[in-house]
Amino acid sequence: MATSWVPDIDPASDFSLANIPFGIISTPDDPTPHPAVAIGSYVLDLKVLAADADFTQLFPDTPSLPSALSQPTLNAFAALGRPTHRLVRSTLQDLLSSDTTRPSVLRDNEALRKAALLPQRAASMHLPMAIGDYTDFYAGYHHAHAVGVMFRGEANALQPNYLHLPVGYHGRASSVVVSGAPVRRPVGQILVDGKPVTGPSRKLDIELELGCFVARGNEMGARIGVREAEDECIFGYVLLNDWSARDVQTWEYVPLGPFNGKNFATTVSPWVVLADALEPFRAKGIENATELQGYLKGGREDGVFDIALEVDLTTAEGDTTTIGRTSSKNLIWSFPQMIAHHTLGGCPMRTGDLLGSGTISGPGGVGERGSLLEMTENGKKEVLLAGMDARTFLKDGDTVTIRGSCGPEGARVGFGECRGRIYSAVQG
Amino acid sequence: MATSWVPDIDPASDFSLANIPFGIISTPDDPTPHPAVAIGSYVLDLKVLAADADFTQLFPDTPSLPSALSQPTLNAFAALGRPTHRLVRSTLQDLLSSDTTRPSVLRDNEALRKAALLPQRAASMHLPMAIGDYTDFYAGYHHAHAVGVMFRGEANALQPNYLHLPVGYHGRASSVVVSGAPVRRPVGQILVDGKPVTGPSRKLDIELELGCFVARGNEMGARIGVREAEDECIFGYVLLNDWSARDVQTWEYVPLGPFNGKNFATTVSPWVVLADALEPFRAKGIENATELQGYLKGGREDGVFDIALEVDLTTAEGDTTTIGRTSSKNLIWSFPQMIAHHTLGGCPMRTGDLLGSGTISGPGGVGERGSLLEMTENGKKEVLLAGMDARTFLKDGDTVTIRGSCGPEGARVGFGECRGRIYSAVQG
Repeated sequence: MATSWVPDIDPASDFSLANIPFGIISTPDDPTPHPAVAIGSYVLDLKVLAADADFTQLFPDTPSLPSALSQPTLNAFAALGRPTHRLVRSTLQDLLSSDTTRPSVLRDNEALRKAALLPQRAASMHLPMAIGDYTDFYAGYHHAHAVGVMFRGEANALQPNYLHLPVGYHGRASSVVVSGAPVRRPVGQILVDGKPVTGPSRKLDIELELGCFVARGNEMGARIGVREAEDECIFGYVLLNDWSARDVQTWEYVPLGPFNGKNFATTVSPWVVLADALEPFRAKGIENATELQGYLKGGREDGVFDIALEVDLTTAEGDTTTIGRTSSKNLIWSFPQMIAHHTLGGCPMRTGDLLGSGTISGPGGVGERGSLLEMTENGKKEVLLAGMDARTFLKDGDTVTIRGSCGPEGARVGFGECRGRIYSAVQG
Repeated sequence: MATSWVPDIDPASDFSLANIPFGIISTPDDPTPHPAVAIGSYVLDLKVLAADADFTQLFPDTPSLPSALSQPTLNAFAALGRPTHRLVRSTLQDLLSSDTTRPSVLRDNEALRKAALLPQRAASMHLPMAIGDYTDFYAGYHHAHAVGVMFRGEANALQPNYLHLPVGYHGRASSVVVSGAPVRRPVGQILVDGKPVTGPSRKLDIELELGCFVARGNEMGARIGVREAEDECIFGYVLLNDWSARDVQTWEYVPLGPFNGKNFATTVSPWVVLADALEPFRAKGIENATELQGYLKGGREDGVFDIALEVDLTTAEGDTTTIGRTSSKNLIWSFPQMIAHHTLGGCPMRTGDLLGSGTISGPGGVGERGSLLEMTENGKKEVLLAGMDARTFLKDGDTVTIRGSCGPEGARVGFGECRGRIYSAVQG
């Protein structure tokens, strides 16, 4: 495995040379949000690179690349298509490699290197994409099953449609925020002793998910096949926490689904790990013995990814406990299947659309669960924390951090942090 | 009531001097979409006006107005706020009035008049706003009740939450199209004899709704009160047809709500009738004896509008039947209440967000219903049409046209058409 000339890359870093995730930064020198990639504890400013002729001449067939790498979101870059993402990523891997074939472009160009390579702590992270529509699926089989058992018993745990189609709902694009943004406990209408009252949610929860950004969509009325989605339509992946107010959701969701229980905040990790970077970590998802409809067939056997996921809860006092560990392979539908289903009736997808997997839980016990709802059986049991503390649902001052990575030390492909701290509800 | 010097205004026109709705047009001379208002059978090109110094000097306190009136959507104009909408509309009413106080600006400026005033048939209409998020509510009481009776019986017609909060769900912004855009019958997964199959929807339906565009939203974590929503947050209104595939919806919607059954197309009328234009037509909505939560109180008694609505169905053979007539006052929640509820937990609304009222039906019989689901009792009865024809649900080649207006002849405030024709499903 090639190593990088970038200094001090921790072997445990999520951002090895094997990764090269794309994000949107602002810096003291350029406060307008613009693209960068992460490498070790540094960021490489792509807008600075895009202004350099030695760099842009490496992409003679993509004259719009410099402009795409200078926008305030990654949408223009994503829209260039997967072959371009592949070429740009592999070129950056070469430029950052110890045995780069083009040392003069970056490694040995001191002025450019100093201008473009900055410590991560000097950069602020922004939402990587302008999100047109956000859709959240429910493909985490063990989560759906566990929640179903809780509310309807073992015999009726899964709804009749669950094994036949990727159940999903339209989420709220305006409330998607980047890791680190504060999360305010929502006020909502909830039932107390059978009567509706208005007040701060008492059952504020997390949902550990994988998010997927669309590179290329479809015209209205057309549809996208599973294989086409796999090969051409996905830009990359992020970690996603679909914060949920369970008590608000319980009262509001019949018959039209979750609304205020979900639309107050959804946090995504800032670095988009490109589809190509995750290819080596393909895995088989949850077996589904159901005979599928044709439009859901034809994808790869190994349609999901084996990304090790963990959820940490840090109290206001600073004590951190890992409350859940699982893998993103615990999905019964792949993202390409979700896209095929989403577009079956002709619904147009656009560059920058965000898809959530649904909460991911493992098949095992409390320690493999992606929501407090499951870990605490809807508040009946406590999750014990470091510092002699315990939780049923989240407390003001809690910070939740999701992490995810795959690959060995020194060649890790990871997401960094998807983090949010809970602030007290607005009164009044 | 003042009259206009614009020629040949039909007294029955939706676009009297009392209206002045805003839309986005393109013309042979300027194919880039840009703002206009409708007056009689003409459009007044606002981008042409915005380039004229005599016009712009009428707005010395709004230096950004010319730019806002030259954009490809109305978002920038909407974001200027309701006092500016009011001033621009009343100024245009004056300029277009027979007894205008400023004849030299437009009426007597032949060059400008000829450049700016065009027959409506010379203009193509475009989606008026860039829609960030689309939310569809369920505030049509008689619709919710009738559908509830149909599926759960009289005793359980309304869900327990229905009278306590404006039930709604997140819709799909990418599939909102302007009147006249073709509507392709969606393919979907549906149950036939209890088994899922994939095929064209057999229960394609309409939903007669009023739509509302947001002028000014809220910061994430903040909320908007009912009165604030009423006074400051609404830009204007459109007619809306939330096309629905009932069979797709029935199979998919438990537990997360409608998805592919709704996301293939939503049609809106092209002209945004400003909030001020509808003020004279305020009315009381459906009485709700429930003790409301505080955040839903404090709005005006006459929180909705009495707009006469009708739905026409035109067959491929060209026979037209009015299949439904009702009023938009048949809502149990006002748009300001919907906005207050939507933002209760801090969900950010943005300029250009679209809210749908939910299907509007009257309290009377089949002729007052806003969906075929109700008119035909879910396909059990036929609606008779002109030309010896009949329908349970929509047939390929059908054109559905929704109209809405208020006010007397000569001073009518109407929406024009919200129209879509059904094209056959994509095979394969």
